[in-house]
Amino acid sequence: MQTFCYYMPTKVICGRDCIAEHGALLKELGRSALIVTGKSSAKNGALDDVLSALEHNGQTATVYDRVTPNPTVACVREGVALLKSAGADCIVAIGGGSPMDAAKAMATLAVQERTDDEIFAGGYEARALPMAHVPTTAGTGSEVTPYAILTNDAKQTKTSITSPAMFPRFAFLDGKYMERLPVVTTVNTALDAFSHAVEGMLSRQATPLSNALAAESLRILYPLLKKTSGPLTAEERDALLYASMLAGMTIAQSGTTAVHGMGYYLTYFYDVDHGRANGLLLGAALALCAKKGLVQLRNILSACGAELSEVCALLDGLLGRREEIPRARLEEFAARAMGNKNIKKSVYEPTEREMLEMFLSSFPASDA
Amino acid sequence: MQTFCYYMPTKVICGRDCIAEHGALLKELGRSALIVTGKSSAKNGALDDVLSALEHNGQTATVYDRVTPNPTVACVREGVALLKSAGADCIVAIGGGSPMDAAKAMATLAVQERTDDEIFAGGYEARALPMAHVPTTAGTGSEVTPYAILTNDAKQTKTSITSPAMFPRFAFLDGKYMERLPVVTTVNTALDAFSHAVEGMLSRQATPLSNALAAESLRILYPLLKKTSGPLTAEERDALLYASMLAGMTIAQSGTTAVHGMGYYLTYFYDVDHGRANGLLLGAALALCAKKGLVQLRNILSACGAELSEVCALLDGLLGRREEIPRARLEEFAARAMGNKNIKKSVYEPTEREMLEMFLSSFPASDA
Repeated sequence: MQTFCYYMPTKVICGRDCIAEHGALLKELGRSALIVTGKSSAKNGALDDVLSALEHNGQTATVYDRVTPNPTVACVREGVALLKSAGADCIVAIGGGSPMDAAKAMATLAVQERTDDEIFAGGYEARALPMAHVPTTAGTGSEVTPYAILTNDAKQTKTSITSPAMFPRFAFLDGKYMERLPVVTTVNTALDAFSHAVEGMLSRQATPLSNALAAESLRILYPLLKKTSGPLTAEERDALLYASMLAGMTIAQSGTTAVHGMGYYLTYFYDVDHGRANGLLLGAALALCAKKGLVQLRNILSACGAELSEVCALLDGLLGRREEIPRARLEEFAARAMGNKNIKKSVYEPTEREMLEMFLSSFPASDA
Repeated sequence: MQTFCYYMPTKVICGRDCIAEHGALLKELGRSALIVTGKSSAKNGALDDVLSALEHNGQTATVYDRVTPNPTVACVREGVALLKSAGADCIVAIGGGSPMDAAKAMATLAVQERTDDEIFAGGYEARALPMAHVPTTAGTGSEVTPYAILTNDAKQTKTSITSPAMFPRFAFLDGKYMERLPVVTTVNTALDAFSHAVEGMLSRQATPLSNALAAESLRILYPLLKKTSGPLTAEERDALLYASMLAGMTIAQSGTTAVHGMGYYLTYFYDVDHGRANGLLLGAALALCAKKGLVQLRNILSACGAELSEVCALLDGLLGRREEIPRARLEEFAARAMGNKNIKKSVYEPTEREMLEMFLSSFPASDA
């Protein structure tokens, strides 16, 4: 057996009304919380539940609800400034990946000063303000990872920062916050979760335990993925959220692969939703795995209980009409992606030529 | 989906020579370690590896190697006294379940004073000295649980104490320490691990994630169980240790069931090895599940890839000649076990009559 580590210290609380039921746990975080969320995340009931729990615990709260998709360093700075002026000593993040990732960066930068130039330089110490995370989409898995992905304008992409202290202390998973999620968000975030489970199994850093978690995620997620474009029952929402969390536990160990690394350019330059960007490239990555005869592909398909052609057809159906992106841009993205650390972490380790082929087959109209 | 929590904050490091490779992690524990081990645990190379790592880190070490099987409160007191006189501020446990459980109790009682009468009264705070655990058998899973099982003379059984701070900070899993383990120990400890995975799935406190971990454990463990009475390869030792850890992660969430609760009497009164005691009763528990038509049994057998009769035959083969225990004692044990908190936690929740039947079918000679 290969040498490997497993670490995921977040306490996860799953189930209907889990914040109301287990809100007393939040007391451990501190006496004054900064709530980090986005405009829409605040409207699904999660913010009210968190505010009630904090009030019940005698904790004060300040709300920062200005996190936008693909959060910037400026947003993180703004949150830290509010946190300090409010005297907050802990953070509760509510939302999808953007508020959760912004919150992790705020929790870290609040106690470890960095200039803008140093933010993506790595080497963070294991110190951050304690956090609780409440995901309101089923996709990012950020509630159980030590990563924060931020927009990196200097490199014109998205880049992750990480430290063991970025694992939230608590994650509260309640599918009811997703009841009124727009279909497109449900689909895109489910594609993100699917991508995490699949890429986790395609990572050179995969471990026996991360693979087991990924396979379990896929067993639940794949049949649900087919349903994301229609109405979902409460049980299906819960299962989707649970599977997304398992996929997060997976990448907390394995990291992601070239699909994520390549997708960030689609998001940075064409504002393609993050989950959709992964979904757009995933079929091409799986096809490359098939071409290279990788055993990991068989494990993925076995967990899905599907053939490669079925998986690709499902992705195609969920993605609908694909963006048109000039070939010259895709060539540029392939060249840029060569410098991405995720490429070498992929068992399908694509060459620049192969990345271009992946891009071109993902955006066929662009080949014209 | 039912409401459930998941929490297992131990950092697990698996692989050959993992202490030599990752021993720097031990620095985080403190400056002076009490090493808690047993006489034989010290002879498999693990103690030397830990001492080298601590010395390399500039940490001092005091060795307490007087832990015996089924550790007593007196042993825990002795360890705490040595810890205090040596000025130790952390603990490294090396061995099977007994040294690991004794170490957890020492780490807790060193910072939370209790009289002997209060030790099993529960309500421990989440405070303990930081610990690293090095299992030298593949069975207990204690390296990833928050439980310490001690001999409880007042109640003439074994009783667990628990607190979230009893999760070790680190667990180092290296199968090489098991190379020269006596066959009987390999078999008995593997039966313990098997029992954890099976009972985890038979617990009313089972969760989706504990079931996934248990099933993964059984998929690896069951085929290996057949081999434990013969020579094992290094890879098989590693896999056994990994599966045992997964079973430990399972019961860290689910707890154990009546099998454990009943087996403690066999250990207390007849000195039956703990793993063997579980193994002796497990077939009867599974038969009771079959009689009650429990779906959990199907999940267990599916993960094992075996029929109930095959599992029982395998257990019989590994256990060999069963102890002879007077029927009157078994009647007494069944009556006593009714007060055990594990009984109600079992999905096969046995009545006293059913427990007696389980005992009698497990020790057929006793029926005479």
